[in-house]
Amino acid sequence: MRYLEDFAAGQTYGSARLVVTAEQIRMFAAEFDPQPFHLDEARARDSMFRGLAASGWHTAALTMRLLVQGELRPAGGVIGLGGEELRWPRPLRPGDELHLHCEVLEVRESRSRPTQGVIRVRTQTLNQHGEAVQTMIANLLVPRRPTPNSGDTIVQ
Amino acid sequence: MRYLEDFAAGQTYGSARLVVTAEQIRMFAAEFDPQPFHLDEARARDSMFRGLAASGWHTAALTMRLLVQGELRPAGGVIGLGGEELRWPRPLRPGDELHLHCEVLEVRESRSRPTQGVIRVRTQTLNQHGEAVQTMIANLLVPRRPTPNSGDTIVQ
Repeated sequence: MRYLEDFAAGQTYGSARLVVTAEQIRMFAAEFDPQPFHLDEARARDSMFRGLAASGWHTAALTMRLLVQGELRPAGGVIGLGGEELRWPRPLRPGDELHLHCEVLEVRESRSRPTQGVIRVRTQTLNQHGEAVQTMIANLLVPRRPTPNSGDTIVQ
Repeated sequence: MRYLEDFAAGQTYGSARLVVTAEQIRMFAAEFDPQPFHLDEARARDSMFRGLAASGWHTAALTMRLLVQGELRPAGGVIGLGGEELRWPRPLRPGDELHLHCEVLEVRESRSRPTQGVIRVRTQTLNQHGEAVQTMIANLLVPRRPTPNSGDTIVQ
């Protein structure tokens, strides 16, 4: 578990890998993104996706799972304030195996909350060919390391 | 169904409404965001969320469903290139009823693809009190209106 003080710009973190099936792509789409190119192989072939493609929000949700179970491990959990520059450069396909490459871009102490800070992390969600299916800059809330007790004595 | 020519900055579009249950919040979290504050009422009460809260990515996925089934209706479907300024200003709670308020910010023709363009849409996902649980600027790919035939004759 890492506190704000443990993070620094330039650090990189990886993740486990997971494989996505056509059935999972269709099930997610049926519930959240019911459009033909996410639901039906034949109609997907005739679409601009040229084959079944996962909803971008499915890719985003899988990215969150890899992040929660990945190497980053902020103390207190992965708590996102939001994101910037969310992109899906290419479709996530049935059978693709995903993993993350995360880079810490910035570490900021919070002015309003002295016990917390924010780290900006570029997350790249890569397929088995090392190609990005999603990129985003996430802003994550991270607690500062607690002091041993609140009434610290300074020994000189 | 609306083509690029039908959209203009300043237009607003709404959506249907949907209610989110605690069971749905836990099921999404178990699959994509397995953290205590999204899974367990008691542990959520002791967290910074002070009660069970949906994963932000669950809110995003539900927003997509409302967008696909909403009033915007771009020809060819809701095809997102990505997003900017994704924020979750407050948690989505069990029993919350969501709907969208969408505003077209900008309409751009594509320089590289003459048959398409991009619209920038601010999406606000509001609860039953009219409070935003998510805000984002989405970039959506929209086809231009097809001409009657490709070899148009200009009559003067």
